[in-house]
Amino acid sequence: MARIICAGLGPGDPDLISIRSDRAIRAASHVAYFRKEGRKGQARAIVEGMLRPDAVELAMEYPVTTELPFDSPEYNDALAQFYDLWAERLAAMPGEVVVLCEGDPFFYGSFMHLYTRLKDRVAVQVIPGITGMAGCWHATGTPITWGDDVLSVLMGTLPEQDLVAHMQSADALAIMKTGRNLPKVRRALETAGRLGDAWLIERGTMPGERVARLAEVDVADCPYFAIVLVHGHGRRPEVLE
Amino acid sequence: MARIICAGLGPGDPDLISIRSDRAIRAASHVAYFRKEGRKGQARAIVEGMLRPDAVELAMEYPVTTELPFDSPEYNDALAQFYDLWAERLAAMPGEVVVLCEGDPFFYGSFMHLYTRLKDRVAVQVIPGITGMAGCWHATGTPITWGDDVLSVLMGTLPEQDLVAHMQSADALAIMKTGRNLPKVRRALETAGRLGDAWLIERGTMPGERVARLAEVDVADCPYFAIVLVHGHGRRPEVLE
Ligand SMILES: C[S@@+](CC[C@H](N)C(=O)[O-])C[C@H]1O[C@@H](n2cnc3c(N)ncnc32)[C@H](O)[C@@H]1O
Ligand SMILES: C[S@@+](CC[C@H](N)C(=O)[O-])C[C@H]1O[C@@H](n2cnc3c(N)ncnc32)[C@H](O)[C@@H]1O
Repeated sequence: MARIICAGLGPGDPDLISIRSDRAIRAASHVAYFRKEGRKGQARAIVEGMLRPDAVELAMEYPVTTELPFDSPEYNDALAQFYDLWAERLAAMPGEVVVLCEGDPFFYGSFMHLYTRLKDRVAVQVIPGITGMAGCWHATGTPITWGDDVLSVLMGTLPEQDLVAHMQSADALAIMKTGRNLPKVRRALETAGRLGDAWLIERGTMPGERVARLAEVDVADCPYFAIVLVHGHGRRPEVLE
Repeated sequence: MARIICAGLGPGDPDLISIRSDRAIRAASHVAYFRKEGRKGQARAIVEGMLRPDAVELAMEYPVTTELPFDSPEYNDALAQFYDLWAERLAAMPGEVVVLCEGDPFFYGSFMHLYTRLKDRVAVQVIPGITGMAGCWHATGTPITWGDDVLSVLMGTLPEQDLVAHMQSADALAIMKTGRNLPKVRRALETAGRLGDAWLIERGTMPGERVARLAEVDVADCPYFAIVLVHGHGRRPEVLE
């Protein structure tokens, strides 16, 4: 019977993997991970040098559908079929498979699409990880929240006016899935009056890490793996509960 | 010269500590941690069995000021003096001190009050950790966010109408510092129409972990170490950036 372990990898630095995930990854006979076709894959890159020499690797490559817009119903159908297929394949494995997942698997992780398909059929264990955004706020060297700060986590894929409304009402912000959405995210921050306090963190805790003021970045640059952060300033000095 | 390492401990299970924090904790000759007077301290409890037998322990005990309300200016003054004092003591240490911090130190962590006082005087390294809220959403066995969900992190110490407004506009919610604020948090969720989807997670990933529907909990119970969560349902199935 298949047993699935999803190992949260944390933000990228292998030293930030948890003891439990580290142990599962090093012991794994079968390792699966998502990647785009023709790429090594971010998750696989993080565990470089950690896998058993005889580990069997299952690269789950996202369907390439260059003729379809990313947000079309057809593209989502192709993705749903892709997750169906891999859920079947993993469920049919004869033993344990460790699925690698960047950051924390339950926090905007693609693994959840396998999880919902597998959890009532086979044993699935999910190991938490440090989120990418936490790696990014550590890269800035400044606490993200304190006191009564409200932190809102936003996706760059949201409509611009939704972004603006949330940017105005929260104290601290983490904006993920920036990529091609970076010009929109930047405009929304400007409208909300918060661009001056925004940081762009690319590849937080990884080789090639870059921290820059968003206002000073060329947004046409559109880094693939990046998060925008605005730090909170502490609504009240400290209130113990 | 003093060198300070703040080691994020994660949500409570010692197996969820990062490789880097684990290494720092086990090697430490001097270990400091916050606690309330007369208690063992949550952070100290997490590392039980991990410290060197000859490790020197520095318990930083919050000032007890039973005659002052927790949110009075006088209480905040007492706290500020307490942080000043410990910043001095740590800066005067002859070598390395590992400061233990639950969850992630830069995410609503008390360590930041030492960090701001120390960072321009001595070498300070801060090691990220898995947040308490991540430990809590894993305890529920359900992903907290996917697709375009907005997650808002709120403190139970916020005014009730602020809580309601944020509860209405976000998809997923994590409410910390519940404690004595639990009745207010519950009322706010009810006003926002979200009480039916709210979970109370006490001591996530620790011995004595409890997961319950908030609507079914006796709020007079007021657990000390607890988080309220509302899961997102995914605004859109999946949009790759
Ligand atoms: C589908 S989400 C996965 C989030 C992941 N499960 C986590 O817990 O962080 C992918 C997005 O995470 C962000 N991200 C994750 N780790 C990052 C890092 N180390 N540096 C910069 N961005 C990161 C990027 O914005 C990327 O678009
Ligand atoms: C001052 S904040 C510290 C947060 C910490 N730095 C983190 O990253 O989680 C303390 C609050 O965290 C919450 N908390 C942290 N870990 C928890 C856990 N394992 N289970 C339940 N609540 C937790 C409680 O709401 C508590 O009031």
